[in-house]
Amino acid sequence: MDKIDIRPDETAVFAVGGLGEIGKNTYGIQFGDEIIVIDAGIKFPEDELLGIDYVIPDYSYLKENADKIKALVITHGHEDHIGAIHYFLNAVNVPVYAGPLALALIKGKLEEHGLLNTTELHEINEDSVLQFDNIKVEFFRTTHSIPDTFGIALTTPSGVIIETGDFKFDLTPTTHQPPNLQKMAKFGSEGVLALMSDSTNAERPEFTKSEQFVAESIKKIFKNVEGRIIFATFASNLSRVKVAAEVAIAEGRKIAVFGRSMETAINNGRELGYLDIPDSSLVDAYEINHLPAEEVMILCTGSQGEPMAALARIANGTHRQVSIQPNDTVIFSSSPIPGNTQSVNRVINELEEAGANVIHGKINNVHTSGHGGQEEQKLMLSLIKPKYFMPVHGEYRMLKVHTGLAQQIGVPLDHSFILENGDVLALTADSARVAGHFPASDVYVDGNGVGDIGNVVLRDRQMLSQDGLVVVVATINLTKQEITAGPDLLSRGFVYMRESGEMINEGRRRIFRTIRYAMQEENATENSIRSAVIDDLQTFLYEKTERHPMILPMFVMI
Amino acid sequence: MDKIDIRPDETAVFAVGGLGEIGKNTYGIQFGDEIIVIDAGIKFPEDELLGIDYVIPDYSYLKENADKIKALVITHGHEDHIGAIHYFLNAVNVPVYAGPLALALIKGKLEEHGLLNTTELHEINEDSVLQFDNIKVEFFRTTHSIPDTFGIALTTPSGVIIETGDFKFDLTPTTHQPPNLQKMAKFGSEGVLALMSDSTNAERPEFTKSEQFVAESIKKIFKNVEGRIIFATFASNLSRVKVAAEVAIAEGRKIAVFGRSMETAINNGRELGYLDIPDSSLVDAYEINHLPAEEVMILCTGSQGEPMAALARIANGTHRQVSIQPNDTVIFSSSPIPGNTQSVNRVINELEEAGANVIHGKINNVHTSGHGGQEEQKLMLSLIKPKYFMPVHGEYRMLKVHTGLAQQIGVPLDHSFILENGDVLALTADSARVAGHFPASDVYVDGNGVGDIGNVVLRDRQMLSQDGLVVVVATINLTKQEITAGPDLLSRGFVYMRESGEMINEGRRRIFRTIRYAMQEENATENSIRSAVIDDLQTFLYEKTERHPMILPMFVMI
Repeated sequence: MDKIDIRPDETAVFAVGGLGEIGKNTYGIQFGDEIIVIDAGIKFPEDELLGIDYVIPDYSYLKENADKIKALVITHGHEDHIGAIHYFLNAVNVPVYAGPLALALIKGKLEEHGLLNTTELHEINEDSVLQFDNIKVEFFRTTHSIPDTFGIALTTPSGVIIETGDFKFDLTPTTHQPPNLQKMAKFGSEGVLALMSDSTNAERPEFTKSEQFVAESIKKIFKNVEGRIIFATFASNLSRVKVAAEVAIAEGRKIAVFGRSMETAINNGRELGYLDIPDSSLVDAYEINHLPAEEVMILCTGSQGEPMAALARIANGTHRQVSIQPNDTVIFSSSPIPGNTQSVNRVINELEEAGANVIHGKINNVHTSGHGGQEEQKLMLSLIKPKYFMPVHGEYRMLKVHTGLAQQIGVPLDHSFILENGDVLALTADSARVAGHFPASDVYVDGNGVGDIGNVVLRDRQMLSQDGLVVVVATINLTKQEITAGPDLLSRGFVYMRESGEMINEGRRRIFRTIRYAMQEENATENSIRSAVIDDLQTFLYEKTERHPMILPMFVMI
Repeated sequence: MDKIDIRPDETAVFAVGGLGEIGKNTYGIQFGDEIIVIDAGIKFPEDELLGIDYVIPDYSYLKENADKIKALVITHGHEDHIGAIHYFLNAVNVPVYAGPLALALIKGKLEEHGLLNTTELHEINEDSVLQFDNIKVEFFRTTHSIPDTFGIALTTPSGVIIETGDFKFDLTPTTHQPPNLQKMAKFGSEGVLALMSDSTNAERPEFTKSEQFVAESIKKIFKNVEGRIIFATFASNLSRVKVAAEVAIAEGRKIAVFGRSMETAINNGRELGYLDIPDSSLVDAYEINHLPAEEVMILCTGSQGEPMAALARIANGTHRQVSIQPNDTVIFSSSPIPGNTQSVNRVINELEEAGANVIHGKINNVHTSGHGGQEEQKLMLSLIKPKYFMPVHGEYRMLKVHTGLAQQIGVPLDHSFILENGDVLALTADSARVAGHFPASDVYVDGNGVGDIGNVVLRDRQMLSQDGLVVVVATINLTKQEITAGPDLLSRGFVYMRESGEMINEGRRRIFRTIRYAMQEENATENSIRSAVIDDLQTFLYEKTERHPMILPMFVMI
C-alpha cells in the first residue's frame, strides 16, 4: 500500500468502487476521524469473468477505518448502488440512511441475508439534514429511472462536496418528482468546493429524452394494438413500469406480472404509493387465457434476452403458461446492455418466427436512458459551479470526456481529477492534491463464495471452456516400476468419445509407454511422471486436433 | 428428411447457409440435372459456442447431388462468402468462378490447404457469360466494402433469377467501380422471375453513407493531427484500407503495416492494382522510431478489440515494437460487431489511459457500413422489379422487414418467401411454392475438427466454464469390497485449493464412506458407485459453495 498522507486540515475524497467502470459505486468523504460512505453497489461481470455472479469492491480500507465510518448514505435503489449492502454491512456495521423506495429494497436484501435486526436503518427525504461531528449531509432531488433519487451535499470544514448520484434532467418525469433545480442552484451560488458527477452518458451529445416522451409513444402503440401486449423492461426501471401499467389500465387492459423481480417491484411500488394499480387490474397467469386478447398486458422481465427469464421462455415455447399467439405484440422497452445484443436478437428472432409483432429499438421511442447526456452534465456543472471536479460512475474514456465538458463550463483541466478506485484526493478550501492510494481491486462473488475465485481459477475456466479436458488415470507402483492399472483416458468438452475412439486408444498406448519411460528415469517422482504425461499428450492431441485441452493426470501411487 | 418434390418444369432455389443468420452464405439454383452454387461462406460463432473457431454449412445435400453441380460462382472475397471454400471443395470438387480479388484470396486459401493444384479456377469480370446446359450465368457490378463485388443473374428455363450478393449503392466509391445501374435496370425491364437480396441492414432506415464521405472525414482528421496516427480497421475492408493509405501518403506519412491479415490485404491489393502504394511509402516496424511522429501512420488489425491483435497489444503495453506515446491518435475505422462491444471499449480505455487520443464511433464519421439500408434495398427492388422475392443474408427479423419493403415496391406478401436453410423453393414462370426441405444445420469447426463437436461437448464446456470441475480418483476392488487407494480429490476452475483445504478434506472423508456403502449394495457396479459419488459430492459442494462443478469420478477397478 502507498502511504496515504492526509493533513488535519484536509478533507479526503475517494472511491472504493465506481471509477474506471460502470458499477460498484462506493464513495467516501473523510475529515479527521469521520468518514461518510455513499452507496454500496455491485458490478455485473463482463463476459470473460466465466461463472462469476457479480463483482464487489475490496472493503479492506473501510474495515481498517471501521471506527471512523459514521454512516452509509444511499442515493437510490439500483443494484449498482445498493446491491452489495449486505457485504458492506458485514465488513462495517454502520447506520444506513436511504429514501423510502431504496429503504424498502434494502430491507428485502437484509432480511434475505439475516441482517435486518442488526442494522440501524433511517428513512430520509429531500429535507433531511444529518449532522455528524464535522460533516453535515443534505439531499437534493434528481431524476433517474427509479423514484426517490437524490444527489448528496456534504458540508465539510473544507467546503461543500456534492455527489450527484445517477441523474438525468427529466423536467416532465412520470413520477411527479421533478429535479430540484433551485436547491442545486442555491448550493452553487453559496459556493461548492468539489463536484463528483455521474459520467455514464458523457459520450452522448444529446439531452436525454423525458420519460413523458416515452409514455406518449407507448400510449400511441397501445391504441393501435388489438391483440395481447407483452411488455418487457427492467424491473428496476420503476418509472417505466409505472408508465406501462398506467397506459394499460387507461386502455382497458388487465395486467399479468411475470418474473420474480417484477413481482417484487410491483409490490414495493404499490405499497409505497408510486404505482396506482387497483387489485381489479391485476390478473393471475392462468386467467389470461379466459380474457379477450385486447384486454391483456403481460408485464415481464427478460428484456435483456436473459435465457432463464419469462420472455425468453415465452419466445422459445418453454413457458408453462404463455405461448405466442399470432396477434401478440411484444414491446422491448429497454436497450441492450453491451454484451447482451446477441441474446436480445435471438429472442426477437424467436418471437417473430413464432408469429409475434416485435417493437424494439430507438426508432420506436419506447425507451430512454436514465442518465443525462452531455447537455445535462453541463447543466449540472453550471448549476453547482464547483471549484474542483471529479467525474465518477464511468469508464476511463467517459471520465475523460466529462472533464472536457467541465472545462467548457469553466473548471480548468488542472482542477479536474480523473482518479482510480483507491486514489485519495485531499482538499482544502483552496487546494486539491492526490494524497495517496489504497488497494481497491475487484472481488469476485460466485455462489456464496466471496473472493475465493481469482485469476488462476478464471484462467482454468477459460481454458476448459475453449477445449475441454482430458483426464489420465493410472495406478503406479514407483518402487517396482510397475503400472498396476490403467492408464485410462476420459475427456469432457473436448471431442465426442465415440467419434474419436481410435485417437483415444492411440493416446492410451502412447501414455503407457511415456509413464514406463518416465518411471525408469533417475529420481523419478510422481511429479516428473505427471509432467512427462502432460507434455506428451498435449503434443499428441494438438497434432491430431489442433486443440489444447487441459490435461489432468491423476495417479494412484501404491 | 422431408421429401423434395421438384417437377421437371420447375427451377429450384435453396440456401445451404445464409438464411436466419448473418454468415455462411451458400445458395443453390437447380434446373433438372444442373445446379449452380453461389458462394461458400463461413459464419463466426456466437459467444455461447465456446471454443468453436467458426461454423460451416452441412454439405450433405450438395454431396448427394455432387454430379449435378456444375460450378461454384463467387460474388466477392469476404469470409462469409468464400471462407469455407476448402471444406466445400473437399465435399464437391467443381470449377470455381470469381473476380480478380476474390480469386487471389481463394488461391491463398487453397494453397494453404493443399487444394490449389486440384481445383479448376476461372477469373471472371462484369462482362463474363457462363453458359451451362440449362442455366446461363451473368454478372453485374455492385458496391460493397471490398472491390470486385458482383451481383449474379442466372437465366433459367423458368426465368431470370438474381442473387445480389452483399451490396450498397455507393455512387461515389473510392474504388472507381460504381454500381452498374444500367445493367440492373436492363434485367428489370426484360423481366426477372425472382430476386434474392441482401437483408443485413433491413432494419436501418437510412441510405448508407458513401465511402467518399468517410474519406473526407479521414482527410480532415489527418490534417489536424501532429503526432503519430494508428489506424485500425478490418483487413477485409479493402476500400477503407485504400482510403487510409492514400490519405496518409498525401499527408506525407509513411505506412507501417501490422497484423498478418493486413499484410496479406496490402500485398493482394498492390499486386492487383487496387492499392497505389509505392515501396517508398512503406516502412518496417523498427523504422518507425527513427521517423518524426508526424510522418508515421501505423495501419493495423484489431479494430474489434481482438485480444491477440496488434492494437490490443499496443494498448496494454505488450507489443514488442510499438508503445503508446502521449501525442498518438488512434482511429477506430469500424463499428463493433455485436458481442465485441466490451472488448472494443476495453481497448479504448487502455489506449486513453496510456495517453492516446482515440477517435471512434459514428459521430466522427470514420466508418460506414458495406451494406445498403432500407432505401437502397428498395432501390434494388425497384431496378430489378422481380415477380417473386426471397430475402437472403440475414436473421429472421431482417428477412421479415425486407419483405415489408418489397411489398412497398409492389411485390405482394404472398409472392415473398421467408425461408430457412434447406427449404427448397420451386419456381415456374408463373408459380412459386415450397417443394420440400433437406437438413442444413450448423457444422462446428474447432481446430482441425469438423463436426466432431456437438451439443454435448458444448454443454460440457458451458458447465466447465461456469463452475469448473472436481475429479475423484480411487482404486477399488469390488470383489473384496475394498478401497485400495484414494479417494483423492482434485479441482480445476472451481475454488482455490489452498483456501478450501478443509472442504476438500471433508469431501474426501465423505466420499470414502459413500464408496464403501455403495460397494456393499446388492448388484453394486462401477457405474452405481460412480452415480452415488456424483450425487453425494454434488449435494455436499453445493451446500458449501452454492456452485455446481462437474464431478468426474475416475475409478481404477482391480
